[in-house]
Order: sequence, then structure tokens, then C-alpha cells
Amino acid sequence: MKYCSQCGAAVELRVPPGDNLPRFVCRQCATIHYQNPKIVTGCIAEWENRILLCKRAIEPRLGLWTLPAGFMENNETTAQAALRETLEEANANVEIVGLYAMFDIPHISQVYLMFRARLLDLNFNPGEESLDVKLFTELEIPWNELAFPVINETLKFYFQDRKHNQYQLRQGKIPPHQEYYAIKS
Amino acid sequence: MKYCSQCGAAVELRVPPGDNLPRFVCRQCATIHYQNPKIVTGCIAEWENRILLCKRAIEPRLGLWTLPAGFMENNETTAQAALRETLEEANANVEIVGLYAMFDIPHISQVYLMFRARLLDLNFNPGEESLDVKLFTELEIPWNELAFPVINETLKFYFQDRKHNQYQLRQGKIPPHQEYYAIKS
Repeated sequence: MKYCSQCGAAVELRVPPGDNLPRFVCRQCATIHYQNPKIVTGCIAEWENRILLCKRAIEPRLGLWTLPAGFMENNETTAQAALRETLEEANANVEIVGLYAMFDIPHISQVYLMFRARLLDLNFNPGEESLDVKLFTELEIPWNELAFPVINETLKFYFQDRKHNQYQLRQGKIPPHQEYYAIKS
Repeated sequence: MKYCSQCGAAVELRVPPGDNLPRFVCRQCATIHYQNPKIVTGCIAEWENRILLCKRAIEPRLGLWTLPAGFMENNETTAQAALRETLEEANANVEIVGLYAMFDIPHISQVYLMFRARLLDLNFNPGEESLDVKLFTELEIPWNELAFPVINETLKFYFQDRKHNQYQLRQGKIPPHQEYYAIKS
């Protein structure tokens, strides 16, 4: 951030009065521009003993598999965002069961909110951001070709809980993990 | 938003190629400025059969009671943010028990993440944003002087669950509710 989005003047990084963190503050109109973490929401969409994964058609991690998920938009709920992302990436119709996992990724200022969901039919197909969309049993999950560590962690918890058919809210933190991201890059 | 924070030129509201929502896009450098919901995190800080509330020293809702909570910052976890807000607003030391409630407030693009927490000592006192900080039993909760609907909803769930000492993750949505906000405004 270099310029004020309100008046177009230059901003400077300084600690505003009464605050304790540096913020971008406009030198002209004094607007303080706060920057906050973003929410990523998505679904574990279930069909019998299988779940839906999407093969990414876009960077980062093009060609690797992920759960349908993406950035939450203004004026929607977390569940609406998860449904929308599932529809956009997999053209899949689901109904939400409930929040299943929350992951903090502080080094990139993201919070993942992953819902369990029931797939309502098999009429899914790749959206614009996907190369392929498929159902996987636990044994078929391509563990070494998952796009992001948070997806591995979510699915590890999920299959643990599914053994007992008892799903508890799972919480975790994803640390910076360079070698993970180095695959295929 | 009127100006591009990257180059200072004017922005316009339009749907970028491949997108389906209007965004602020720079007319000069074409940067797309996404706007996303913010996370508010806080604590239900427990001490025996009482919980901690803060009387607001700032607008909005100055003079009304709330749980210690505030906007999550970049590069922290949700739990760290809840601890920080509890320290800032009540100078209270707590340890997190776990996520207790998630509320969507789509009309103001906020997601509340409220944690249960144990108060570690009684050395709390009002921070700069609080006029008073006190422990309340269920019967003492000032239901008609709570600052925000999301605080009422969180506490209603909490005292329901406390009766049975069984806390499940609670999820809800706070609708626009004009008359609520009209009190004392």
C-alpha cells in the first residue's frame, strides 16, 4: 500500500495514537487503513464413503488436488461462501452439515473454515478453476498430490473421525513449511 | 474506495474478466482491490460460576456491556487474537479452552469467533477501551444493557450449555436488527 484509497495522497506506516501496531495512515486526510486476515471457506462434500476433490486449473499449485474452497466475500455467511465455492469449482450441489475444522495460517494471515457437507447428486463437473473433479475413497486420496498442507490436515482429521462416525470440531495451526510448497514449483 | 492504493490513480467499480462480482479496479495499473469480511474474536472468560464482561468506553454502544472481543490482526492466530483482546480490554489473563461459537453477521461482513477461556487470576481491570470490568453470574447478566445482539446470542447459548456442562460448538447468524441498535443511540 502506497496511496490512500480515500483521497489518493501518499500513506506512511506509523503507529496511530492509542494504537500499538504500525498502520498505513494517510499523510493528507489521516485515514487509517487497517489490514486484516482473510477467511477461506470450503466443503468436505460426502457421497457414501467418498469425498469430492478438485484438480486445480490455476496457480498456485496447478494440477494438484484440493477440497473446493476459496475466499469468503462480503455480505455472505461462511456457509453460503462454502456452498458458492463448491458450486463454482465443482458445479456440485451440496447441503451443509456443519462447521468441521478451523485452521489458523498466521504467516499468510488466513483462517480456514471447513464444513462437512452432503453431495445431493452426482451431476458435478469441473468449474473454470478446476481441471477435474472426482470422488475419492480414503484409500484413493492422492496424499502426495494435495495442493496445500491445510487440506492434508483437514483430511487426516476427517478420516480419523469418520472411523468412529463421531465428528468433533477440529482446530489447528499450519506453520510455514517451505519444502511442502517446493513440490512441483 | 476512490483511488488505487498501489499507484494512486482513480478506481472504477466493474466485474473483472473471469469474475462475477463488481470489484474496485484501477483504471491505470489494473490492480483489483478485493474487499472481504473481517473476523472478530473474543473470550467468554470463566471464573467459577461467573464470566467477565467489559463496559464499553468507546462508541459504538458506549456504556453498554460486552465480552472482550475485537478485530483479528494479520499474522496472529484466532486464539492469540482472543487472548490479546481480553488483555487489552480487561487486563485479564486467560487460557483458551476452545472455540465455542461462530456467528455470521453478513450485513456488516463480519464473522465472530468466540472462545471459552479460563480466567487465571482476579487481577483484571479496565483497559483503555473499557469503563469497567466485572464478573457476573448468570442471574446478574445485564441482558438489556448488552452492547451487541451477537453478545446476547453467545451468552444465551453459553448458559444453556453450562446447565448440562456440555458445550457444543454453536453456530448462528445475526440479522439486521435496527431497533436493537437504536437503544441509547
